[in-house]
Amino acid sequence: MNEASENHLLLKVLNKETVERPPVWLMRQAGRILPQYRKIRNSLSGFIELVQTPELAAEVTIQPVDELGVDAAIIFSDILVIPEAMGLDYELIEKKGPFFPTTIGSASDVAKLSEGKTAAEKLHYVFEALEITKRELNNRVPLIGFSGAPWTLMSYMIEGQGSKTFSKAKKFLYQEEQAAHELLRKLTETIIAYLKLKIEHGADVVQVFDSWAGVLDKQLYARFCLPYLKQIVDEVDTAPVIVFCRGAWYSLQEIIDLGSAGVGLDWNTPAHSARSINQSTVFQGNMDPCQLYGKPTEIEARAKEIIAGMGQNHIMNLGHGVYPDTPLENVKHFVNTVKAHRY
Amino acid sequence: MNEASENHLLLKVLNKETVERPPVWLMRQAGRILPQYRKIRNSLSGFIELVQTPELAAEVTIQPVDELGVDAAIIFSDILVIPEAMGLDYELIEKKGPFFPTTIGSASDVAKLSEGKTAAEKLHYVFEALEITKRELNNRVPLIGFSGAPWTLMSYMIEGQGSKTFSKAKKFLYQEEQAAHELLRKLTETIIAYLKLKIEHGADVVQVFDSWAGVLDKQLYARFCLPYLKQIVDEVDTAPVIVFCRGAWYSLQEIIDLGSAGVGLDWNTPAHSARSINQSTVFQGNMDPCQLYGKPTEIEARAKEIIAGMGQNHIMNLGHGVYPDTPLENVKHFVNTVKAHRY
Repeated sequence: MNEASENHLLLKVLNKETVERPPVWLMRQAGRILPQYRKIRNSLSGFIELVQTPELAAEVTIQPVDELGVDAAIIFSDILVIPEAMGLDYELIEKKGPFFPTTIGSASDVAKLSEGKTAAEKLHYVFEALEITKRELNNRVPLIGFSGAPWTLMSYMIEGQGSKTFSKAKKFLYQEEQAAHELLRKLTETIIAYLKLKIEHGADVVQVFDSWAGVLDKQLYARFCLPYLKQIVDEVDTAPVIVFCRGAWYSLQEIIDLGSAGVGLDWNTPAHSARSINQSTVFQGNMDPCQLYGKPTEIEARAKEIIAGMGQNHIMNLGHGVYPDTPLENVKHFVNTVKAHRY
Repeated sequence: MNEASENHLLLKVLNKETVERPPVWLMRQAGRILPQYRKIRNSLSGFIELVQTPELAAEVTIQPVDELGVDAAIIFSDILVIPEAMGLDYELIEKKGPFFPTTIGSASDVAKLSEGKTAAEKLHYVFEALEITKRELNNRVPLIGFSGAPWTLMSYMIEGQGSKTFSKAKKFLYQEEQAAHELLRKLTETIIAYLKLKIEHGADVVQVFDSWAGVLDKQLYARFCLPYLKQIVDEVDTAPVIVFCRGAWYSLQEIIDLGSAGVGLDWNTPAHSARSINQSTVFQGNMDPCQLYGKPTEIEARAKEIIAGMGQNHIMNLGHGVYPDTPLENVKHFVNTVKAHRY
């Protein structure tokens, strides 16, 4: 990381420096909310083609920096590149989501998966996209890399697709505990290698998404998630790590205790409640993405309420990815409200 | 309610009497876990046909009482009969779930819906099913009736189907506040009339399911849900009401404050945490339905842990409906564990 990068607001906050205002970016800011993105996306055969074409992935990564004026870029990619690198190909079916033709159902399926740096290195297109983005950003804002968390990736690998309950993946935890731990271990090794490579290739910050934490509970989270997240937080020591465990309100204290540079929050947890648990944790979030469907005055009021509830050590964001049909002018109003704020 | 009914364990607990052990039943106990159910279901063209045929609905309602030995029957029906009675027909698409060909998108759509007793009375097949069930149960166990909560029913009426985010329904809250309140008011009036009629026709207890509470937050829940739930709890005064707001952990105190006879809990909230909030609330739940995929010894250990965490004023149940592929012997082991317990 060069000296200019260190001066960026996001990095200052993750370093617990006192700042004038919270930095702001949006999960899924590189995506369908932007007409520039839709133009590129519609010219291609599929989402995965965009993920695997470094020049285009870099271009859509930079679009929200230009168009929205956000304080960070997040590399355009997908959490399911890791299962793919480990040997489980997937497709993205329009309006349905991810689909794995082959799934994991037993210890012998787990044994066949490759892992660690060998697997992670297959994702060269991501590293190329990071390098191009880093160069073209020319240090305007920091660049965020990301990965799915072990449990979330495991869920997809077992279910083969999204699910309302993830009962098949949870059944695996209850019935195949040893194989589950072996799968989580392999995923963890791969995620660590992948995030380290992302940082080597230009990521200033990395975020781990545990998108399906909400279907578990405190006991399962302690047994099957927290130890692996701890390993990631400890071993990825070359850049700040933000951990975002969506729906894991029941283990918030334990997630804080992981000691990551930042903790993402979904919109369910009131800002002041999170802050009352820990004064010094850097929290990221947590406006309801649907609030951006509302009137500008209401967006502004809610953003200010969250800023007031969080105080310092806060990165403004939504509590979930921005929804594709959000009015662009409302997204801009949200970003501008935060950027105009002074503590 | 006759005297014999009053002696039932479930009713005693809802009346805050001290009992020897918690009563136990399972959400979705009348369903695919039972071979007897599958046989009837497979002989019909669809789920809705079963809902609308009183003799068969009564038969599948009683099956789990015979087969599992649960302490209550819950009438076999569907939460979406209310939108249908108000004028919005739906279908159930195999493996996909409910689908409304026509949805609610504006105040004028809301204005067209019928409401209250006029709407509720159209559901004569439910009342007939209750009467048959009540007669055939012959007072072995109490009979539970149920309804979807206003917000959950509204969600389906706007989305037209299930959704991961319910962003379309939430957008309606943010953009069409007045029409949203009018829709919630109409739903509330219909739910109240419907539950009262259910009680008149044989239900000893009624439960209100707010299945999609989890996509909201404390502020939205206070504005769009709690006042309507309060009205239901206050006006349905002819039998005990259990309120189950799945995912609304952020408003648990406010839900307790509604003063319903019982409060359902999903599996995310540890039993002892709920109990520490309020000693005298009758909590219902809250084992992870996926725990029933586990070993019998683990099912037993977890059930006992929940009983210990809850103490008196507890109705044992799962934290969600039992999943169709749950091994029947495990369900029985769960029920028997609870029935063998003594405080």
